[in-house]
Amino acid sequence: MRIITLLLVGLMSLPISAQTDEETIKSIFDTSLINGKSYEWLSYLSNEIGGRLSGSLNAQRAVEYTRDQLDSLGLDRVWLQPVMVPKWVRGTPEFAFIEIEPGETLAVNICALGGSVATPLEGLKAELIEVQGIEDLKSRDPETIKGKIVFYNRPMDPTLINTFSAYGGCVDQRYSGAMEAGKLGAAGVIVRSMSHKLDDLPHTGSMSYAELPNSQRIPSAAISTKHAELLSGMLKLDPKIKFYFKQSCRQMRDVQSYNVIGEIRGREFPKEIITVGGHLDSWDLGDGSHDDGAGCVQSMDVLRLFKETGIRPKRTLRVVLFMNEENGLRGARKYAEMAKQKGENHIFALESDSGGFTPRGFSFDCSESNFQHVLQWKPLFKPYLIHYFERGGSGADVGPLKGDNNVLAGLRPDSQRYFDHHHAASDTFDAVNKRELELGTATMTSLIYLVDKYGINPIRTNEQLKD
Amino acid sequence: MRIITLLLVGLMSLPISAQTDEETIKSIFDTSLINGKSYEWLSYLSNEIGGRLSGSLNAQRAVEYTRDQLDSLGLDRVWLQPVMVPKWVRGTPEFAFIEIEPGETLAVNICALGGSVATPLEGLKAELIEVQGIEDLKSRDPETIKGKIVFYNRPMDPTLINTFSAYGGCVDQRYSGAMEAGKLGAAGVIVRSMSHKLDDLPHTGSMSYAELPNSQRIPSAAISTKHAELLSGMLKLDPKIKFYFKQSCRQMRDVQSYNVIGEIRGREFPKEIITVGGHLDSWDLGDGSHDDGAGCVQSMDVLRLFKETGIRPKRTLRVVLFMNEENGLRGARKYAEMAKQKGENHIFALESDSGGFTPRGFSFDCSESNFQHVLQWKPLFKPYLIHYFERGGSGADVGPLKGDNNVLAGLRPDSQRYFDHHHAASDTFDAVNKRELELGTATMTSLIYLVDKYGINPIRTNEQLKD
Repeated sequence: MRIITLLLVGLMSLPISAQTDEETIKSIFDTSLINGKSYEWLSYLSNEIGGRLSGSLNAQRAVEYTRDQLDSLGLDRVWLQPVMVPKWVRGTPEFAFIEIEPGETLAVNICALGGSVATPLEGLKAELIEVQGIEDLKSRDPETIKGKIVFYNRPMDPTLINTFSAYGGCVDQRYSGAMEAGKLGAAGVIVRSMSHKLDDLPHTGSMSYAELPNSQRIPSAAISTKHAELLSGMLKLDPKIKFYFKQSCRQMRDVQSYNVIGEIRGREFPKEIITVGGHLDSWDLGDGSHDDGAGCVQSMDVLRLFKETGIRPKRTLRVVLFMNEENGLRGARKYAEMAKQKGENHIFALESDSGGFTPRGFSFDCSESNFQHVLQWKPLFKPYLIHYFERGGSGADVGPLKGDNNVLAGLRPDSQRYFDHHHAASDTFDAVNKRELELGTATMTSLIYLVDKYGINPIRTNEQLKD
Repeated sequence: MRIITLLLVGLMSLPISAQTDEETIKSIFDTSLINGKSYEWLSYLSNEIGGRLSGSLNAQRAVEYTRDQLDSLGLDRVWLQPVMVPKWVRGTPEFAFIEIEPGETLAVNICALGGSVATPLEGLKAELIEVQGIEDLKSRDPETIKGKIVFYNRPMDPTLINTFSAYGGCVDQRYSGAMEAGKLGAAGVIVRSMSHKLDDLPHTGSMSYAELPNSQRIPSAAISTKHAELLSGMLKLDPKIKFYFKQSCRQMRDVQSYNVIGEIRGREFPKEIITVGGHLDSWDLGDGSHDDGAGCVQSMDVLRLFKETGIRPKRTLRVVLFMNEENGLRGARKYAEMAKQKGENHIFALESDSGGFTPRGFSFDCSESNFQHVLQWKPLFKPYLIHYFERGGSGADVGPLKGDNNVLAGLRPDSQRYFDHHHAASDTFDAVNKRELELGTATMTSLIYLVDKYGINPIRTNEQLKD
């Protein structure tokens, strides 16, 4: 039986073995663009299921749907990896207004930040203090903070070409703003949405109180960029205007959820594991198409493209759909913990969690020598306009797999439009272009094909790990 | 007076002269992203004016608006260059259906192709013959064509990464399909829309009968990709089904229109002219935001960014908004003809007519030695993720300026989404991302800054052309 399988494998892989890398990569791109499956899967995840907040019924439906789809691909193994996740619920729709004077109000668009406590039942009304970030807050006289609503209004820097850098330069306001303001006795926090675009949509996202005692935990919400500008303008006219908001979000008990995993076992070095993944949970305002439905369906399609193009991997390929990236990272931690427990050797992990836009390349988190190794492959990508191979971060979900000698990588799509949609009601299926999504899948598959064929640090690993 | 001006110029240009190219280019990008004007201009062109078919009132309004805007920039000269343009009108909305049998019909979405004749007043109904292009048509028995509606259904090749190549591989069906079918006695032509996307929108575009006698000029229309698929599927079930369509478009007499031109006179080599432009006319189904409102407002903003960042050009910079690119190219021909008449030396001409998407680079139409000259500048663009400097086509409007020793160039934005919008009702302002548009402007301005500073083939030109 074993011999027959090996013979079959040998025969099936003949056409691929005879191909140059250029030809194989061309065949991967052609197949993805002619016969990709990612867009169809994404349509289901987005349009039939929708937003998939950790612990929600939709998240569970997404687990079952993707497991079933992976099951249908004829992989060697598909399984669910249990993980307890936090469950935060938004409650009834938030409501907010600017009170110019009693009776004269202007409604504005807000949404609770993930992890925030509720306001009192009757809502919260107070004067505001506008600051440009946490440092600015800390530089103020604490007396001017007490009892106020702190309005963090530092915009994303438009001059940074990589919009993720602009996001990184602002997001501490959202994540830690309420904690810092709470320590100073503020009543609540309103944060300018993390978006370059001036529009009416509030963008949610995670925040944390860390170890702050309950008494200092104050409600925090994001306000749309247009209304942040409006509020700031009105505060210049009259610093005494008040802000009212009401939200009923709450943290429930942790609930059982799952990472969804599928695997093709390697035929030569099965103990060398290559993972590709995205996160299955999303925020609840949109349907999570770019963040990160796109990364999930692309990752699933990577394994399907191996099958479709007849490439039998030497190493073990795993797609991992991580649960709870957005507000806990529990799935990623569980996956890495179990990998360690089992002594698994993860030589390469690729994450797609930057949207389903035209791929530009990858960033690699690895040693210089491993980077030089992968850099050799860059010319193979030139026909596909993939030009970005740089050292840098990989992704939140593959981060915990970091080892001394492995390579972590993140797909880097064009980032200009990402934050127009990120964590907002506008993160929807219609904002994803089919070709852009499929080019991303093909780019990911091609890199994994090369990692699988040539290995990472091949001298050491081939000797030690042959089954 | 002249000396004072020169002194002033010298002083004003000091800060810039002291800057490295890296710093100047950074300042161009920063200014475009913080204080760009292109998006606001585009909003007016698209939302306040709309589709700008040659010879239409809207086209005239666009001429006046852009002339006024250029006037407000303090350029050295702004003028209108008269040009007679064809005027084709769509008439009442087109109407079409598939007739399965008398009384059983399915409405489908079509639009007349630009330049097409009308159907008879009562419409045209006939059986169909589906072909995969003009070659396929010519290979058929002419008896099978006569009296039929020829249905050109070759799709764009999804495997070509540059979508313009896929367009190039199909568009002969649209442009010459009716002429070829008319010669063979067909009754009419229906062409699959030039789009990768499967949707309900028909995409118009130009067609020509060339020298065909009137009696052989048959009406031609585009059908949406979804309905092309539907029609093809139904023809497989029953080749005898009929197609009905009705359109009342017509060619009017030529009318007076204009190219809109603005100029900053060079302070060292004013006789060396650098142009940047797009086309002001558009099709009528959408508002022409990507094709080519984007290219117009970017080109206008190039000159404004020179002013805004304090760069005084050595050479003469001209923005040219060409009229009638879509169905005649009269503006481009007129501009080149006048340039020749006046003995103007156009050393460089840049066109932006590939949509307002994230810029990836340029293609250059020039000699190998001139290409090597511009290629030196490529590393300066790396921080802005501009990676594409290749020899190739430039653009339809700058093409007539081709000389022995000049450089023509086209901005090359990401092309994946372009044909979703091209010539269809979906070419609208909301499909343009502000940052993507502004990055394009900055990329164009940076290249022109370098051309202006270093010249093209500088040894010859500096000697000959010093004022």
